[in-house]
Amino acid sequence: MNIRMIFSSLGTVLCIEAALMIPSLLVSVIYGQADVYAFLISMLIILAVGFVLHLLKPKNTQIYARDGFAIVSLSWIFVSIFGALPFLISGSISVPIDAFFESVSGFTTTGATILTEVESLPKGILFWRSFTHWVGGMGVLALMLAVLPSVKASSVHILVAESPGPSPGKLVPKIGQTVKILYIIYTAMTLFQIILLVISGMPVYDSIVNALGTAGTGGFSVRNASIGAYSNVFSEVIITVFMFLFGINFSLYYQAIKGNIKQFFRDAEFKFYFGIVLGAIILITLDLTGNVFGSVWESLRHSSFQISSIITTTGYSTTDFNLWPSFSKSILVILMFIGASAGSTAGGIKCIRIVLLMKLVRREVHRIIHPRSIYTVKINGKAVDEDTLSSATVFFYAFIFIFVIALLIVSIEGKDLVSNFTAVATSIGNVGPGLGIVGPMGNFSSYSPLSKAVFSFCMIAGRLELFPLLLLLAPTFWKKVNI
Amino acid sequence: MNIRMIFSSLGTVLCIEAALMIPSLLVSVIYGQADVYAFLISMLIILAVGFVLHLLKPKNTQIYARDGFAIVSLSWIFVSIFGALPFLISGSISVPIDAFFESVSGFTTTGATILTEVESLPKGILFWRSFTHWVGGMGVLALMLAVLPSVKASSVHILVAESPGPSPGKLVPKIGQTVKILYIIYTAMTLFQIILLVISGMPVYDSIVNALGTAGTGGFSVRNASIGAYSNVFSEVIITVFMFLFGINFSLYYQAIKGNIKQFFRDAEFKFYFGIVLGAIILITLDLTGNVFGSVWESLRHSSFQISSIITTTGYSTTDFNLWPSFSKSILVILMFIGASAGSTAGGIKCIRIVLLMKLVRREVHRIIHPRSIYTVKINGKAVDEDTLSSATVFFYAFIFIFVIALLIVSIEGKDLVSNFTAVATSIGNVGPGLGIVGPMGNFSSYSPLSKAVFSFCMIAGRLELFPLLLLLAPTFWKKVNI
Repeated sequence: MNIRMIFSSLGTVLCIEAALMIPSLLVSVIYGQADVYAFLISMLIILAVGFVLHLLKPKNTQIYARDGFAIVSLSWIFVSIFGALPFLISGSISVPIDAFFESVSGFTTTGATILTEVESLPKGILFWRSFTHWVGGMGVLALMLAVLPSVKASSVHILVAESPGPSPGKLVPKIGQTVKILYIIYTAMTLFQIILLVISGMPVYDSIVNALGTAGTGGFSVRNASIGAYSNVFSEVIITVFMFLFGINFSLYYQAIKGNIKQFFRDAEFKFYFGIVLGAIILITLDLTGNVFGSVWESLRHSSFQISSIITTTGYSTTDFNLWPSFSKSILVILMFIGASAGSTAGGIKCIRIVLLMKLVRREVHRIIHPRSIYTVKINGKAVDEDTLSSATVFFYAFIFIFVIALLIVSIEGKDLVSNFTAVATSIGNVGPGLGIVGPMGNFSSYSPLSKAVFSFCMIAGRLELFPLLLLLAPTFWKKVNI
Repeated sequence: MNIRMIFSSLGTVLCIEAALMIPSLLVSVIYGQADVYAFLISMLIILAVGFVLHLLKPKNTQIYARDGFAIVSLSWIFVSIFGALPFLISGSISVPIDAFFESVSGFTTTGATILTEVESLPKGILFWRSFTHWVGGMGVLALMLAVLPSVKASSVHILVAESPGPSPGKLVPKIGQTVKILYIIYTAMTLFQIILLVISGMPVYDSIVNALGTAGTGGFSVRNASIGAYSNVFSEVIITVFMFLFGINFSLYYQAIKGNIKQFFRDAEFKFYFGIVLGAIILITLDLTGNVFGSVWESLRHSSFQISSIITTTGYSTTDFNLWPSFSKSILVILMFIGASAGSTAGGIKCIRIVLLMKLVRREVHRIIHPRSIYTVKINGKAVDEDTLSSATVFFYAFIFIFVIALLIVSIEGKDLVSNFTAVATSIGNVGPGLGIVGPMGNFSSYSPLSKAVFSFCMIAGRLELFPLLLLLAPTFWKKVNI
């Protein structure tokens, strides 16, 4: 391990984080609130720590994959720790573990909160809270291109990029340029959403903050009743559509810009994602009409918003779906696990993995019937190699294992099963709200510090596609090897 | 498909079923109750149908693997349908879907019931109900030797048989002889348990019936309060130990009889099974002491019974664990999914598969750290081939998929999430009781006929290790092929 290099890189990351606080500082200056000092002090501390770490100039700048994983995992942890400073210093959150939880929830684009009331908080602090979502989203886009391809278990990300197109296979080598293009798409879509929200009648500040939360599929809101507080159908429709859009594999936008628009509608993951959203909307609308809402239109409005929010792991809400009937709630819980597309800012297991797993079950059935035949699993007409398949499956049960262990630890304090189950699911899936205590009108504040630490671990594990974080826990990871 | 051969075999199976009703008939004769006629009429009907089917003598007696799967799956369905006749004819259960549910629950060794009250039922009927567990257990032992080895996805069963021993690899070819040996072990253990229960002070009839339910890891009881009704510590300890014993891979007993006793304590699955039972007992005892029971001894007594009952998917209870704290309940729900050992009469995912999946996660971590090295997964010191690994993983998510779809359908009728979740888990895992409505003091009677059909499907799917039943649903399974 190149420890000096790792810490030097973390120093650079912290300096960038300090710079990323400038917009929030400006917001607090504009609104003339007391949180100006919270940001100034936080930035000074972060810059100082970052600069000291950065000074650990490595003699040897060569890094191996292992160092890369360590940098990524530790970056997310460090950025979350230092990102909690404004919350603490401004007094918006007084308990350190709560501030850390909120910061992790922001950077991992989860959107789960320990705040019982947000409307009284300073504008700058609320801006920072949502801005962490947007930054986290950018981090994920870079992650999937620069780091995850070398982690086999997460390699499904590049499936689309590798599939036939105008310039097949050329996406990965030019990482720097590709990240730049993805960031342009990401920023342009965010700006476009802000404009539309303002047009729909949402206040400018709220439009910006809510768009940041949509883009990162985060879900922190500046209103206690989330998006429901605006009672504005147009805003809801805009957010519904944009949540869905930010849940699509960004490589597809990249391909579309390059002229390959057909790829969009041919893509196996997109078709599955679209199909499951459509199916869920129909089923939940049927379940709600007459039961919860009087009209089909009202049911459709709320079901499509909530479904788009949950499957993309955003977590905004327009109504308390904790009060919906069991069938609708069960669908939402299942969507929490599925998540949206790989290569988007969304969390969860990801549609492409579910598609692969279903194809593997079908292959097994075929194998039993015709033992002598050979079946290849195909995605978008191209055979998927066994390593990628095996990786998708390992990811699936690593996800379940972490889920089960977290659930056990969290249940020690005796809260009800549904709250515990969905709280862990919503954390590891980077969704935000769950059911019961942690429902859309509830929050995580009543959980113990131990449980909050477990939720934080789950959020980071889920965000990093499990393995970069699991590696840090493996003793062999830290062993010296001669290569 | 050799349809004539399939139906002719089903005819034979039905004739055997009629013969298997003789002990229950004798019980009803001994007690002189009205259910004598129910059994006589049922036997006549079953014999008649069986004989007609048997007459469909096939011209070609050759069968392929596909025909075998069809025979196995349809046998379980047919036997369950006709096994419901005594319940219906005696009037013990008046609704056909309920009688079918109860019969499926019996033969699949699940033990979930729709009966709200059992103590008033005729002795012969109750004997038949528990005897179906014992017969189901025999069916499973034959299944794992004769059919499942050719189903790749379920092939982990023979791992132990294949591992080094006095005569390695010779277990499978001599299927007939091996099944006979397993049946002798099974019967001897059942008789031994009956004797011990009688000595402990349990009435003879109850001792026999409860031993039948233990051996098949079924769990139907002749008392409304299950084993708790006897308030007899000795009986409880005997049943606790025997449930645990019937959850061990029978190949280990086979090896032990052949002199290879060391294999028992070296076996990876046994170590895991033993470890998880021990760990669960310690954790739940700690959780219950002071919370639910006053003394450690009382907590230990109930925790060990319930854990042994749930992990072996038996389903007896001595106390209402639905009232236990969340931590204990969460552990029990997780044990429902895990199940006991492959090659036993227990249901669930099975310990050996969990062991394999955990080793696969560890391999993935190693692979990422040292991409150029090759890692083989070993069980009992022997490398496991990639096909077996892939099959264990496919089984795992096929299990989860069926679980999720069943959960969705069942939740349509609007019952609470915990009841639905555990009702499906307990059905597909062949456990018996769940939590909430279907807790140890509750039952499945209030669910709709649709849900009961789904539960029945889950019980059969779980019992047959999913794939034989899934095959029946695959269109290609029914296509004519020229071999």
